[in-house]
Amino acid sequence: MEQKCIFCAIASRQIPANVIYEDEKVLGFLDINPLTEGHTLVIPKHHVENVFDISEEDLKHISAVAQRIADKMREAINAEGVDLFQASGQAADQQVPHFHLHVIPRKTGDQLSLHEWWVSQIKKVEPEKLNELARKLATEEIKEVIKSEEKPKPKERSKEDVYWIKRATQLT
Amino acid sequence: MEQKCIFCAIASRQIPANVIYEDEKVLGFLDINPLTEGHTLVIPKHHVENVFDISEEDLKHISAVAQRIADKMREAINAEGVDLFQASGQAADQQVPHFHLHVIPRKTGDQLSLHEWWVSQIKKVEPEKLNELARKLATEEIKEVIKSEEKPKPKERSKEDVYWIKRATQLT
Repeated sequence: MEQKCIFCAIASRQIPANVIYEDEKVLGFLDINPLTEGHTLVIPKHHVENVFDISEEDLKHISAVAQRIADKMREAINAEGVDLFQASGQAADQQVPHFHLHVIPRKTGDQLSLHEWWVSQIKKVEPEKLNELARKLATEEIKEVIKSEEKPKPKERSKEDVYWIKRATQLT
Repeated sequence: MEQKCIFCAIASRQIPANVIYEDEKVLGFLDINPLTEGHTLVIPKHHVENVFDISEEDLKHISAVAQRIADKMREAINAEGVDLFQASGQAADQQVPHFHLHVIPRKTGDQLSLHEWWVSQIKKVEPEKLNELARKLATEEIKEVIKSEEKPKPKERSKEDVYWIKRATQLT
């Protein structure tokens, strides 16, 4: 347990919270600053900061718990969808330095302006820059594949196919 | 494979993409509409729509792949943090109906106004409403715990403790 960590204090029940899920390793409780009604945080009980230092095993378990909570949101409060969000690091706008996964229930017309914000944030990145980034980020295995691959020949496409591909690739 | 699904077409390599990760079940590639340089999507190769219909096993695997990609972002393009995001359902602003997990590398001063947007979206929810939501969302196991629990007595807290708890609970 980390001194002065609000989520450690919640996990050890020193500070009350609206707990909706608990097992040996994980706690799920309502965010007191919700984006929508039912907005939930899923945390590991032991202190880890973010996706860089949580164990793979715990990350997998938390993902599965979030899925169960998402199902429950559809069943119990008529959510039509959910947004999952996890910020790791101050530079990524993480506010509390104890790993937490947001599960945000969504309904049509719920006034969360996520899409509008998202579209406003898209950056133009030139194809050459994308290629350079891909080369840097590629795992060694993929680099071998890229090297050994012949340039794939574009398949013959119908007009209709070209149309939907164009439309689809404009989606965010 | 789903007809006219852009991500199925990318998974089967009918449409080119800047692939950075691949294994038997999963593909990772750069988003062509990135929020930051290096913004990556992780998808299952077979068609599933969202968190409600992906298998627990595949969700866990994709989470672990995202963690590996996050590590690679720190190492290869000097990311200081990452944001993970997954939209499930039209009501949740999912644009392409094939499961995709965003891994968005972040750097100090990268001009992504996530925090500003987030704070602007916080809804005031009264404590009674939070209690009601928690009762609805709680799993059966938790409901038993809540029923059987004595109301926990608040511990004696120093002035300093009260101060940091107040500050901490104001964080988003």
